[in-house]
Order: sequence, then structure tokens, then C-alpha cells
Amino acid sequence: MATYELTVSAPNIEDRSFTKPLLCGPGPCDLWPSVSEALAKPVITPLCDEHYNVIDDIRAGLQYIFQTRNKLVYAVSGSGHSGMETIISNLLGPNEVLLIASRGIWDQRANIIANRYGIKTIIISAPFNTTFSHDTLEVALNKHKPTALFITHGDSSTGTVQNLKGLGEICHRHGAFLLVDTVVSLVGEPFFMDDWGVDAVYTSTQKALSGPAGISPVAFSQFAADKINNRKHEPPFYFDAKLLAQQWNCYGNTRQYHHTLSLPLLWALRQCLREVAKETLPKSWARHAATTAHFHRRIQQMSLQFLVPKPEDRLATVTTIVLPNGYDYVKFYKYIRDKYNILIFAGLGPTVGKALRIGLMGVNSTIEVADAVADAMMGALKVKSLL
Amino acid sequence: MATYELTVSAPNIEDRSFTKPLLCGPGPCDLWPSVSEALAKPVITPLCDEHYNVIDDIRAGLQYIFQTRNKLVYAVSGSGHSGMETIISNLLGPNEVLLIASRGIWDQRANIIANRYGIKTIIISAPFNTTFSHDTLEVALNKHKPTALFITHGDSSTGTVQNLKGLGEICHRHGAFLLVDTVVSLVGEPFFMDDWGVDAVYTSTQKALSGPAGISPVAFSQFAADKINNRKHEPPFYFDAKLLAQQWNCYGNTRQYHHTLSLPLLWALRQCLREVAKETLPKSWARHAATTAHFHRRIQQMSLQFLVPKPEDRLATVTTIVLPNGYDYVKFYKYIRDKYNILIFAGLGPTVGKALRIGLMGVNSTIEVADAVADAMMGALKVKSLL
Repeated sequence: MATYELTVSAPNIEDRSFTKPLLCGPGPCDLWPSVSEALAKPVITPLCDEHYNVIDDIRAGLQYIFQTRNKLVYAVSGSGHSGMETIISNLLGPNEVLLIASRGIWDQRANIIANRYGIKTIIISAPFNTTFSHDTLEVALNKHKPTALFITHGDSSTGTVQNLKGLGEICHRHGAFLLVDTVVSLVGEPFFMDDWGVDAVYTSTQKALSGPAGISPVAFSQFAADKINNRKHEPPFYFDAKLLAQQWNCYGNTRQYHHTLSLPLLWALRQCLREVAKETLPKSWARHAATTAHFHRRIQQMSLQFLVPKPEDRLATVTTIVLPNGYDYVKFYKYIRDKYNILIFAGLGPTVGKALRIGLMGVNSTIEVADAVADAMMGALKVKSLL
Repeated sequence: MATYELTVSAPNIEDRSFTKPLLCGPGPCDLWPSVSEALAKPVITPLCDEHYNVIDDIRAGLQYIFQTRNKLVYAVSGSGHSGMETIISNLLGPNEVLLIASRGIWDQRANIIANRYGIKTIIISAPFNTTFSHDTLEVALNKHKPTALFITHGDSSTGTVQNLKGLGEICHRHGAFLLVDTVVSLVGEPFFMDDWGVDAVYTSTQKALSGPAGISPVAFSQFAADKINNRKHEPPFYFDAKLLAQQWNCYGNTRQYHHTLSLPLLWALRQCLREVAKETLPKSWARHAATTAHFHRRIQQMSLQFLVPKPEDRLATVTTIVLPNGYDYVKFYKYIRDKYNILIFAGLGPTVGKALRIGLMGVNSTIEVADAVADAMMGALKVKSLL
């Protein structure tokens, strides 16, 4: 037997004790217990019949949560940002124009990603605690004649929800695709891909779906799929929707290997979708609305201000709250984490130093959790050292 | 409360009974039991201290399995192909030249990926059941003066293992980076990133590491990191090693958010690395060598032929076997799957219709499993209907 001399010795990786807080930030969220269990289901391969059944289950579940009959629906093997990069790089090529409606940090990411592909971007901005009127968007569409409009439905950095109903029709009237980020909104806020005329959408599993990060559902309209099938440019291989449509059997005619799918994540996503199907979307939306309405009443009783002035702009999954003058947002969230074992977040991007971000979503969208967070905040507000 | 009319009704996703076969193909492999358990560990976020400890554990474990003291070492949030796309797109830009040493299907994938970035590729081929001599590679390096050479260490489509010792020095003498795929070899075959002068390497978790797919370890030499830090081109955002170095704290100075990491996959990879560290690399290599040597003796007793003529070219994790004239490879593997509940694979790419591919790796690299596969093959060879 050969002997080998190692130049790097084995590390000593020990288990440490730690306490997992209740996850009440803008994500990741805690998992459904059934999803934790599903992660440990057996690894199977494309040579096992059940593998394709899992794929088919997931596609049916995704069509349900996106409310679409489109065929080009599957999950990207990566986190939410891989979904963003997928829809941008598949639909737009060099020198095409992407109009970005910006009111938070994620649309800025879309700008960074688009620029890497030589896509020209035009950014229109709204104050970060507001949303866009369709008139404003139509003026910009008319002026810039973009290939596509990118907009976030929910924005986890600001706690706003954008009205999208009818926006697809406006985009199409101006020859533009409508691209939507639903990472922090889907399943927590009503969303209708087909009725609203959305051409490309992605979401992520670690928000209101209460699943693990690492797999990112996407869907394309027929209008978008036609563009993809006739485009001149090529996206990254790993994100190529044309090839992934074959792996995911989107058109019912082929199941071709593209890359090795992560079975634990497929099982987990499938179980998230079962949870939503069992509850039904309208009840999931109503639960998120009711939990957040209750939480907002508690916040108002504490005389705290919402960052987002208009109630109709406030997202059902993430609430942004302004603390009274003098409070340090970072100290405040850390106090609540350390004292109550509840994790809420300080601001991000445009809201740094301006708001707390509290997520009540998925398995944590309950009156009990809302009360626990509100009680912790009441406790923290009494602590002078956080001023 | 608002009422909503759904256009797509909830699917009925039911659990079906199915039997998971013993996974003895070229991958994915079965999981270590401890890794299955680790998948269900708590989801934590970057705002929990333990999150960074997990990252640090993983980086230390990856430096061990790659045998490197390089700093730019982390895991891509995607399957093995995302590792391939990461090293190619980070290191080479448009019009640079990638020399590809081709003897299987994965180097062909490297060619497809490189072409998408405007990288010029030059392919030199060896018969698929052989490997390259360093003299042949040096002649090509001297002739084509490429920016980098891409080569696979183990090739799961052919069952060969390439001698890499000293190849880095040859590449560097000709000003080229050495890029290596170790997806199916790492932990099963000796590999020394630093000693062999490898500049960029990736692997995957679902092979000899016996973990779930979906996370792809990568490492870059200082020579490669310098190029990345001074390059003119930009890779996909999701794969950008410059940004990921900050998320993974590769230089010990920052832990900046890039995308949401998948905690179940991080916990699982960490546990895979603990299993390797506990066994130690030399013992893991020796176990894979001994299991496969035993299996090869059994194959020779059946008078079957190896696809790879030279014993030193045969991979310790995947064996390719030629059946006697007249056998149908697909019928053969299906018979063994259905009769013995053991999954071996038929050929892929250059070996379609030419070989069986049998993987004995990770948790399944044991004498017992080798005997179970050999016994099943003996049984199948008696079945005339497979002819």
C-alpha cells in the first residue's frame, strides 16, 4: 500500500452548543416540522422512477403557488439570487434595455447583475418607503422602450408591497416583458402570474414557504419562453432555461440530464408545496394578513411608527418600524435576540439606521409569535441603555 | 377580508411508496447516516454567532480534503456544474485560450461552458479508456500557449484517473493555470492541490464525500487569486469568487452578505468533512483502493473485461466493465436494480453501449457492498434474456 505525507493535517471539528433563536427577521424563516423531516428522505437518482414523480409534484405545486398555467416552470438549483440571475440572463442579451423600478436593495442587485451581461439599465426610483403608481411606470415604459421592466413585488429591505394587478398589460402594450421578484411575498401576499401578465418570476424557499434556502422556483410566460427559444445570446450554462426545461420535463417530452439535482432540497420544496396546498393559498394569504394586522395593532398600542406611511403599501410578511429618537437599531435587535431569543433584524440598504425589520411569515405567521415579538419589543423599549 | 378566485387549483401531492436502491453507480452516492441527521439541524442566520463557526469549520475541512493552504477556498451554492462554471468564468475572459484535455463527457461540458463566455477552446483528445502522458500535455501547452489547461482527475463516464503529480509545474513553466475537476475522485483518490501545483479545483458532495448534491467546494491558488483580483472581465454575479471570498471570510477580514446560504447543505457538508477528518485522508484513500481491488478480483473471477486496459489508469471510485458480446447494458443494469435493489449504471457519453459503470465510494466503499454488487452481477450473467 502506498503511503502519503499530508501537508495539511485534519482539522478538529467539534459540535458546540448554541441556541437557535426564533427567526422573526425578513428571512430565512424557520422550517415547517414536516419540511425538516423531508430533508432526510432517501436520496434517489434519475434512474429511480420516483425521481420523476418528485419533479412532477414540484412543477404542479409551483404552478399553483405562482397561479400559472405556463409550462416553463421549474426550480433553479441555487439561492434566490440565482433565480434573479436566471430570469435576467435568459431573457435579455447585450445592449438590450432593462428598466428597473427601484425602491430597495434587491432592484439594485438586479442592476449589478444586468450590467455584467452588457445589458443597458435605466433606473427609475421611488422613495424607499413607497411603491410605484402604474402611471409613473407607464410614462417610463413609453419613454425608454425597454426590453423588460424589473420590479419587486415585496421588498424585504423596506417592507413594501407593490401593486402589480394590470401591470403586465401595460408592459405588453409597450412591448416590454414584466419581470418580478416575489422572494419575500409569495404565499404571504396574493400573486397571480397569469392574471397579472407577469412574464418571468422567481421566488425563494426560505421566506413564507418556510423551507431551506438553496432552491429557487422560477416561471416564464409563453411570451418569455418564445424569446428564450429565439434569443441570440447565451446565458450561463448552469442557469440556461432552455436546457433546464429539458431536465425538468417542462414540455412533457424529455428528461435530459443537465446537472445533479439536490434531493434533500427537492424533497423539502415538495413538502413546502404540500403544506401550502393543504392550507390553500387564500387561507395562507388570509393568515399572513391577519397575523400582521394583529401585530400592527400591538405596534400602534406602543405608539411606534411604521416606516411605510400608506397601509396599502405595507407588506404582509415583513413590517418595518421606526424606533423613537435616540434608539440604536443594532443594539435593539441584539438585546431582543440575547434576552428573548427572538431574532428580528435592523435595517438593510436604504433602511440602515432607519428601521427595524420584523418578519412574520410561513410557520411563524401566528398570533402567538406576533405577540411574543411585540412583548419583547415592549420589554426592550423600557431599557434605557438601548438609547 | 378580501376574497380571491384562483385560476389554478391546488394539486394533490400524495406520498407514494417506493424502494430506494443501494446507490452503486458513479454518483450520487448514499449519505453517511450522520450526514442525513445533520440535514435537519436548525436553520441559523448570519446574525447568529454559530453561523460563522460553521463557515470556518467548512473552510478548514475543505483545506484538508484539497490539501491546500490557499486562502480562496469555499463552497459554491450549487451542484458540481456550478463549481465547473465558477472556476472557468472567474479565471478566463473573452478571447483567452483554454486548452481542454478531453477523455470523457465532463471535459466536453467544460468546452460548452467556456464557449458561452467567448473563451477560445482548444481540445486535445486521448482515447476515452486511457489518460494523458505529461509529455503529450506539455507539447500542447508549448504549441498553443493557453491561459489555462482544464483536465479531469477522475472521469466518471470512463472510469479513469489522470496522473496529476508534477503537472502544475509543467503548466506554470508555460505560463498556464492548471484547472482540475475532482468531482468523482476527491477523498477516494490521493489529491494534493499545493504539491501538485493545481490553480483551481472543484468537487462535489454527492460522490466519495457521501453527502447531498447542491453545494460545490472550490479552491484557488494564490496565482489564480491574483488573476481574479486583476481581471478585466466579470463572471456571473452568483459565481463571483471575489464577492464570495468576502461572504466566506477567506481573507479573515470581512463577512459580507452575498446570497442566502443553505443551512441544511452547510450542516451536511460540515458533517461530511468531519467524517473524513475522523477517518483521515490516507485511510479513506486506502479503503477505496482496497474495496475496489477486492471488487476487481471478483470481476476477474467472472472473466469479465475492464474497459480501462492499464491498471494504473483505473479510478478507485468508479469501475467500468465490458460485458461479453451480446449483452444489452441497459437491460443489464435494470435487471440488477429490479432483482437485487442495487443501482449500477450503464455507459454515458463515450461509453454508451460499451460499459457498465459501478461506483463503490463514500459510505458504500466496503467489502460487503463490493461483494453484493459482484454477486448481483454473477446472478445477472446467468440470465439469458439479458443477451
